[in-house]
Formats: sequence, structure tokens, C-alpha cells
Amino acid sequence: EFQEKTIIEPCKATLFAGVGQSAVYTTLTRPKLKHEEDVIIKVVKTTICGTDLNILGGNVLTCKPGTGIGHEGIGIILEKVSKVIKHQLGDRVICQCITTCGKCKICEKKFYGHCDNGGWMLGNEIDGMQGEYVRIPYANNSCYKYPKHLYNTPVEDALVMCSDMLPTGLEVGLLDGNMKEGMKIAIIGLGPVGMATMICAEIYKPKEIYFVDLNPYRLDAAESLGKLPRFANTNFIKILNTNDDAAEQIMKHTDADGVDLAVECIGIPRGWEICQDIAKVGGHIAILGVHGKPGVFNLERMWYKNFTITAGMVHGYTTQMLIDRIVEGNLPAHKLLSHSMKLSQIEEAYKLFKTGVNCLKIL
Amino acid sequence: EFQEKTIIEPCKATLFAGVGQSAVYTTLTRPKLKHEEDVIIKVVKTTICGTDLNILGGNVLTCKPGTGIGHEGIGIILEKVSKVIKHQLGDRVICQCITTCGKCKICEKKFYGHCDNGGWMLGNEIDGMQGEYVRIPYANNSCYKYPKHLYNTPVEDALVMCSDMLPTGLEVGLLDGNMKEGMKIAIIGLGPVGMATMICAEIYKPKEIYFVDLNPYRLDAAESLGKLPRFANTNFIKILNTNDDAAEQIMKHTDADGVDLAVECIGIPRGWEICQDIAKVGGHIAILGVHGKPGVFNLERMWYKNFTITAGMVHGYTTQMLIDRIVEGNLPAHKLLSHSMKLSQIEEAYKLFKTGVNCLKIL
Repeated sequence: EFQEKTIIEPCKATLFAGVGQSAVYTTLTRPKLKHEEDVIIKVVKTTICGTDLNILGGNVLTCKPGTGIGHEGIGIILEKVSKVIKHQLGDRVICQCITTCGKCKICEKKFYGHCDNGGWMLGNEIDGMQGEYVRIPYANNSCYKYPKHLYNTPVEDALVMCSDMLPTGLEVGLLDGNMKEGMKIAIIGLGPVGMATMICAEIYKPKEIYFVDLNPYRLDAAESLGKLPRFANTNFIKILNTNDDAAEQIMKHTDADGVDLAVECIGIPRGWEICQDIAKVGGHIAILGVHGKPGVFNLERMWYKNFTITAGMVHGYTTQMLIDRIVEGNLPAHKLLSHSMKLSQIEEAYKLFKTGVNCLKIL
Repeated sequence: EFQEKTIIEPCKATLFAGVGQSAVYTTLTRPKLKHEEDVIIKVVKTTICGTDLNILGGNVLTCKPGTGIGHEGIGIILEKVSKVIKHQLGDRVICQCITTCGKCKICEKKFYGHCDNGGWMLGNEIDGMQGEYVRIPYANNSCYKYPKHLYNTPVEDALVMCSDMLPTGLEVGLLDGNMKEGMKIAIIGLGPVGMATMICAEIYKPKEIYFVDLNPYRLDAAESLGKLPRFANTNFIKILNTNDDAAEQIMKHTDADGVDLAVECIGIPRGWEICQDIAKVGGHIAILGVHGKPGVFNLERMWYKNFTITAGMVHGYTTQMLIDRIVEGNLPAHKLLSHSMKLSQIEEAYKLFKTGVNCLKIL
């Protein structure tokens, strides 16, 4: 089973070539062990995140041209330093987008997204997952094992989404947004993190979910998630925003009351503005889009509403729970996958993903 | 003691005459009992709130020209409807700025600021306290009694501030801002609510308080509060913002880390922007200024910071506790008073209060 023990050079990787340029599939020198909790992984599956498009667009200032991108995926541990005690050579692991040392004061608070020694490094400050091999620092806390009987199964495909999009949807979109059973929520933008937020919302049996997009294919795909068991009493309302009237449509549906939680999943000022317009008095806005531009904060009509706004990085404190739910068959995250392509096709995959036409998540 | 039982007409009141105009001290018809929990009160003491200036400036759209303003004060109950069972004729009571029916679903959640039958009505949607007499609806839950031995004492002066400014500072500034012992906080703007926030912060023994204003008199007045017992280990840092560099000064003092909680107490976009620039990763911004203009939300550099923003109305769920603290001598709110004037001098008082020169709160 564990046959490919040697790193074959030259190694392929996908590079951020510069702001406004397409991702480039090219050759990098092989990653080498550097620190005492490093592993070198042969990438088995990876995927493209909306944040990768933000890197290409220049919204992520920490990512320098020449960096290998990609922060989601699974792989086989080929090399490790002896202090990596939780994993063995040959294990397949899910690589978390957030590098977590597990020892600093920030990690003590489970605020891993801002770990003093890690945080979001992978495919940002250090070379990432969209290549043949990758170095993962602090592998004890940044990689998650899963059972061998799932290797090369569709469940393994679903597990790739535990690297980032599922915990982001759950932690930043729902838990930071004070999600509770029976709430009315709105998901603005049905890209991968929007869909991840929706599938995770099932845990909380929401009363109503408004889902907003410009793309009817994505609205239909989201609606089809309505068949999950804990969505049995949830009312799904598709809001096609072709006329930029999503807020008006939602306010009309809710008798001008608004929603308990509005989740911004696009990363554009308009997404924020819609959220601001639909959050009810006492409601919550959770921002999980990666934003490149400032928005307008209408304090003059919002100040009295006793609402809460949160925004931020994923930490990964729910990653193990999400893996468990997938392994137990309670979280059909594979439904979020629409395409399967080879690593060598990644430039083409970026083009397809960017258009979003009939496309959710590409593996 | 309870001698003045008759309402003497014509009754004096202070009116909002229209956007941009000064407050007008004039004559109104006497208030009459209307609903089953109403009382008519002879005003003993009242004060001017920064929000009154916002009304005059046109930032409070719910307040129509011709309304009697003022939402803070104490008075003697002259008339009452029989369903008012908590108070008797002749009692002196503190009138809360928030009218609270105590029966609706929103009141059940202690979200009184948005009470279905009340909320902020006094001196906004109905005639307020800056007059000789006032009608207070839902007096059982909207008025608070205090001991007779405090009538006509300096403690009674301090109690006036339980109508609005003290609970606003505590609830909207600190509790909504997740205030905890040992935190570093910044108070942006040392008007009455800023000072109220500071005096209430003593409860939580903060590690550091940065206080920002353009007015050296107010900075000195705030600093003098540092002598309170629970501020014994608190570091007070005055930030004079003459050069509009408050954020830079605070970031320098905190080694570029920022503060745990930034409280916006002015109600202008610049106040919000300073807060945005000084809130640390994982920090909190509490907006308690009444805003008249939109601000810029720098999502492009803020999205990853895992911060929380709250804004809203006071509810008054801490009012009784604050009254108790004042009565017990543990909250020297009288220190926030700088001037004492007669009701007939209120037009002059408005002018003085607006300049803010050597002026905190006028009784």
C-alpha cells in the first residue's frame, strides 16, 4: 500500500505568478524537512478555494509571487521528523489550512487561526497543496488521520473539504454568528464556503434558509441539499439576485423583520451591504468572504439595531468533529463536489472554477 | 413633603423645533394620563444628553419637530392609573429612557430597548423630561424608586444618571463588548457616555484604559476618576487627539497589538475608524455613539482579524444594579456632573453643553 516512498524530481506545483495573472502549473524544487515537527507529504487530492482566486486577484497581501498555492488536501506522509509522534510514515492525513503549533498562548485559547508560530501559512506564506509534494509544519496538530478502509473511497473525497471550507463555514459562518436551533438565516453567495455553511447549518435545524446567488445552477444545487434529515422542517427560499434586489426580496419574505443571521460568503462590498440590510434587530452578520475592498458601514441607520458583526479566520477547532461526522456518514460533503480533474489540468480547473458555470468544487 | 399635587398650567417644556435649530424652551399643554400604566410626574431634576444634540442635528429620524425632548431625570408621581402598583403618589422615581412594558416577547428576552410597546419613546416619540411635567407610560417597569432619605441630597443628583448614561455605558459599551477583568480598553470620546463607560469600567478592574478626546479638560476629568478603589492597578493613558493620531498613539503604546475593547462614544465616522484601527486580533468594538453618517468599513484589512462589532440601544437591565451601587456609595456618579442650572436656563445650558468647554454633564 505504501509504495511510493521516494520523491521524484522535478516536482510539479501551482504558483502564484503575480497579481492579475493566472495560476501557473510548473516545476519547483522538492520540499525538504526544516523544523522539528515537519512532515513531507505526497499530495493525493487537492482542490481550489475561492481564497486562491483572491490571492491571484491581489487581495491577500501576505502571499508573495512565486509561492506555491493551495491550502486544502490530503496526502501520504513520506518523510517526517522524529518529534512528529501522532502520525506514521505511510499514513494518509488531511492537511489543515491553519498551521497550529499547539503550544503558544494563542493556541491555548483555541485561537489557532492566529497561532504565534503558524496561522494561515499553507499556500500563503509557504508553498501549498496544489503540487505533487508539500511540507507541512507542526504536523502533530496540523494534520488529521482517518481510517485506512476509507483510502481511495468517495468518503476520502469528502474529507478533503475538512482542510478549510467545512470548518470555515461552521466556525466563522455559524458558530461565530451565534447559530442556534430554529433560527432564520441567509447565506449570501453559494460558492464553496457558502455551500459549506449551508451543509453545516443542518446540524442546527434552522427554521428558514435564504440563499442568494446570481447563478441558478448553484441555487438549485443548494436546494437539493434540503433533503438532509435535520433539514426536514427547514424552509428553503431561493433568492436569484439578477436584479440586485436580494435584500428587498428577503425583507418582503420576512415581513420586514429580517434574519437572525446573515452570512457573507462572497468577499465583496455588495455582499456585506446585503447582510447589513437584512440583519434583524438583535441579529448577527458573520463575514467569511475574503474581502479586497472596503465597504460602507451605514452606522446612521444601523447603530440602534443591537446587532453583532463578526469576521475572521477559521481556527480548526471543529475539524475533528467534522471528520467524525463524515466518517460516520452524517455529513454528505461529497455532494459539494461537481468536478474531478487531474493535477496536470489545474490551469484549466482554475478557469472553470472562476467562471462558476455549473461548477461547485473541483477535486 | 408631598405638597405640590396640582399641575400648574401653562407647563414649560423644551422642544425640538426642527433640524439644525436650537432647542426651544416654551409652553406645552399639560400631559394627561392616557394608558393603564401611565403616571404623570413633576420633574425634579433632568439633564441634557449627547443624543439630544443628535436630535437637534437631525440624526434621530423618529423624533418629529414639536416633540418635547429629554429622556433623563427624576420626579415626583402626581397622578397615576390604578394598574401602576409598584409606585405611589408622592414617590420620587428615576425615569428610565427606555419604556418597558415588561409583557411582550421582546421584554421576555430582556431586550427592552426594542420593546414592542415601548423602547426609546421618551423625548423622542413622546414628550420628554426637559419640562415641568411628563407622562411616563408603563411606569411599573419604566420607573425606579429610591429611598426617601436620599431626597434632595447629592446622591439624588447621581441617580439622574441611571436614566440613560450609566446603563448605556455599562450595557452597550462594556457588557456588549464582552468586558472582562484585566482587559485593555480604549474609550473614544469623553462626553457623558464616554465618562459613564469609564466610571462603570471600574467594576472590571481593567489593566489599561486609553481615553481619547480633543479636549484637555475632559482628559483631566477622566484621569481624576483613576482614584476609585477598583482602578488601583489600572494604568490610565491620556490620548490628546489634536493631531488626529489617536490610533497611532495607542498602537505605539500597545506595541502594535491594539486593545481588547474599543468603545466608540462620539457618534462620528472618525470615531468608528479609530476603533477599527486599534482593535486587536480577537478584539471587540462597541459602538454607543448615535451616528448620523455612514463610515468606511475596511474589510480588506480587517476580515481576518476575528473581531466582533456590536452597536445598539441600551436596554436598562442593569439600571437597578447601578441604582443600588450609587445608593451603597460604590459608584460616585456625581463626579460626572460639572454644572447645575435651572430649567428656565436650559437654552443656555444647551449652548454650553454643545461647546463642551469645561463641561461634563449639566444637571
